[in-house]
Amino acid sequence: MKPINIKEKFSKFKDHWSPRVVAQMNDYQFKLAKLKGEFIWHDHKDTDETFIVIKGSMQIEFRDSVVDLAEGEMMVVPKGVAHRPIAKEECHVMLVEPEGMVNTGGSGGGLTAENDVWI
Amino acid sequence: MKPINIKEKFSKFKDHWSPRVVAQMNDYQFKLAKLKGEFIWHDHKDTDETFIVIKGSMQIEFRDSVVDLAEGEMMVVPKGVAHRPIAKEECHVMLVEPEGMVNTGGSGGGLTAENDVWI
Repeated sequence: MKPINIKEKFSKFKDHWSPRVVAQMNDYQFKLAKLKGEFIWHDHKDTDETFIVIKGSMQIEFRDSVVDLAEGEMMVVPKGVAHRPIAKEECHVMLVEPEGMVNTGGSGGGLTAENDVWI
Repeated sequence: MKPINIKEKFSKFKDHWSPRVVAQMNDYQFKLAKLKGEFIWHDHKDTDETFIVIKGSMQIEFRDSVVDLAEGEMMVVPKGVAHRPIAKEECHVMLVEPEGMVNTGGSGGGLTAENDVWI
């Protein structure tokens, strides 16, 4: 029963594309991630995924469009929709998604992060 | 497929204790609320509830403790745990909780807000 300070949690890690869990609500987790560069194209067959930009800005590419997300903006990517997150400069995001969701969805590859890593 | 600007959404309403939905992820909703004063004691029997402080500060009273939540801090209140939100000055929060969750839980009363009101 204590507050979670989001900025303080971000200060505890430096690596990119490697989400850290900071809170759990039922079977959903709140994760913090630092993004820089281009992620891979992927989708999540069974679930939506929420991005909330805490610091900096990012883009989410879709097959037919690109969405710019600035600091203080958020977006829910619908399940099954292919997308690719991109951050030209380092961007700090909060992700909200079901426990156990793999960051690379069904695509796999070297950017697949370990799951359920708490800070 | 467009970004949701959290501050811009907050500018669209003024009333307190009346959550507005800004996004949905699976069967969960992201709601914005302006808090001021004391809410009522209540709990949510079937679900956790997440508070993220966007602007200002608030307290969550529990039966045996009080948690201070500053701007940029968050907390998950476990299901079934009686709590009372308080904001001495107006506080802007994002709530994350299952669709259909009633703000006053099982307590009812005059502060019970209409559900599923989108902005």
